[in-house]
Amino acid sequence: MKIVRTIEDMQQQVQELKAQNLSIGFVPTMGFLHEGHMSLMEEAKKHNDIVVISIFVNPLQFGPNEDFDSYPRDFERDEKIAEQLGVDVVFYPSVDQMYPKPLSIKMTVTDRTNVLCGRSRPGHFDGVATVLTKLFHIIQPSRAYFGLKDAQQVAVVDGLINDFNFPIELVPVPTVREEDGLAKSSRNVRLTPEERKEAPNIYKTLQVAKEWIADGERDTNKLTDRLFASLETTISGSIDYLEILSYPELGNIDSVDGKIIIAIAVKYSNVRLIDNIIIDVA
Amino acid sequence: MKIVRTIEDMQQQVQELKAQNLSIGFVPTMGFLHEGHMSLMEEAKKHNDIVVISIFVNPLQFGPNEDFDSYPRDFERDEKIAEQLGVDVVFYPSVDQMYPKPLSIKMTVTDRTNVLCGRSRPGHFDGVATVLTKLFHIIQPSRAYFGLKDAQQVAVVDGLINDFNFPIELVPVPTVREEDGLAKSSRNVRLTPEERKEAPNIYKTLQVAKEWIADGERDTNKLTDRLFASLETTISGSIDYLEILSYPELGNIDSVDGKIIIAIAVKYSNVRLIDNIIIDVA
Repeated sequence: MKIVRTIEDMQQQVQELKAQNLSIGFVPTMGFLHEGHMSLMEEAKKHNDIVVISIFVNPLQFGPNEDFDSYPRDFERDEKIAEQLGVDVVFYPSVDQMYPKPLSIKMTVTDRTNVLCGRSRPGHFDGVATVLTKLFHIIQPSRAYFGLKDAQQVAVVDGLINDFNFPIELVPVPTVREEDGLAKSSRNVRLTPEERKEAPNIYKTLQVAKEWIADGERDTNKLTDRLFASLETTISGSIDYLEILSYPELGNIDSVDGKIIIAIAVKYSNVRLIDNIIIDVA
Repeated sequence: MKIVRTIEDMQQQVQELKAQNLSIGFVPTMGFLHEGHMSLMEEAKKHNDIVVISIFVNPLQFGPNEDFDSYPRDFERDEKIAEQLGVDVVFYPSVDQMYPKPLSIKMTVTDRTNVLCGRSRPGHFDGVATVLTKLFHIIQPSRAYFGLKDAQQVAVVDGLINDFNFPIELVPVPTVREEDGLAKSSRNVRLTPEERKEAPNIYKTLQVAKEWIADGERDTNKLTDRLFASLETTISGSIDYLEILSYPELGNIDSVDGKIIIAIAVKYSNVRLIDNIIIDVA
């Protein structure tokens, strides 16, 4: 497994791989790899000749009051995990490599951001779109892998790739779950034992939504109200949002029709959990 | 020579060319090809296995009061010129192909635009950056060719390619000139005989600037004032701007040092002429 720290070296590697017509599967990460990332790497490994991951904590996607400096980093551990999973190249650039000077062009994600988690993170997805544009150009992957746990990110990347015709296939990978249904997250350890016990009710509520829709309910307001009321009684945390939107456009809809997302965020004492399901309603 | 009208067909062509490791030289145009374009195509032909040109009048780079609808179009003539010059593929998409729906991400060129022609064309370079990003992804060229007559456009594309790490070499091509030095332009026919006779003084003024700098003058204010006064006496048109800036950053400079551009725009009765030289001052 190669560790590549400069853009120039990475471009050199990519050029050699491209000359051999090898397909590249790319998993962009901010490091501190967990099972979610592992499922992405495994998926990339299955369908590509070469797997490249990037580890880069991107300052551009952190707000001024967010935790860029304290964001967890452990490159040695990440390196071992990547090696075990058969990753071929780890692109691990410094901030100076990626942003040697201020950018002359600003990317602003104007759609799909003013809902769900985006509402409380202005500018976050602008930073995501910017760094991904750079990484996509440096790595030139055939396929790029993103976890559906952050479905809004997948939706924004879908917009980026389609609107700007990147020659890249976006592969959304299903959320990895605990046996009781709770979406896996490195943040779950911050739950108290009581909170951990009731947290699977978030996913259960999403399953209930699916049933109600299957039973014929189409009114998003009614669904949202009923689901909110139902979830509220089963958890001690406070519901940050419970939204039903079109997918991947993330537009408000009066009636459930076609591809939709049901997404929930719950605030607990020391952690905020998110989960969602995407379903196609005929 | 192939005429390709859809993004899908173009991507298919590109994939086949890439699989054979052929280099692609790309000349983006808005059609109505003239000698400036021809020099770009000839240059592309010399250094690449395949030459692709695009003909697309991009609505996004026209302001609300600009001439998108009346912009000259003559595809049959363009086709003949391209064929004669040995172009391999003409990408000729419709507006619906390029912009099937509103974009979810906006690109804003924040640097290099508030000078020269950009000052009077707000949003113009945002549209240029957007369409080029799309075209670069669709064509995947090894090299992209731009005429230095529009040096500000070259500077913006330099920013786009470098800041976002496009795997593309930007090739700026020198301005093609009449024997008397006047920069060639399809708009020159709109000059009256008297205007045509004096118009070469624009280029002569740029040459004088070069001499003065060679003679040791470094003060940009002094140079600008002297050049303005000198040009003013030799033309009947009005000087729209005469600027000395760093290149490609297009920043204001007190003193001439390193790579700089001297650019002039002159308004005549029915046409506005632009010209520039870029020099490296040791």
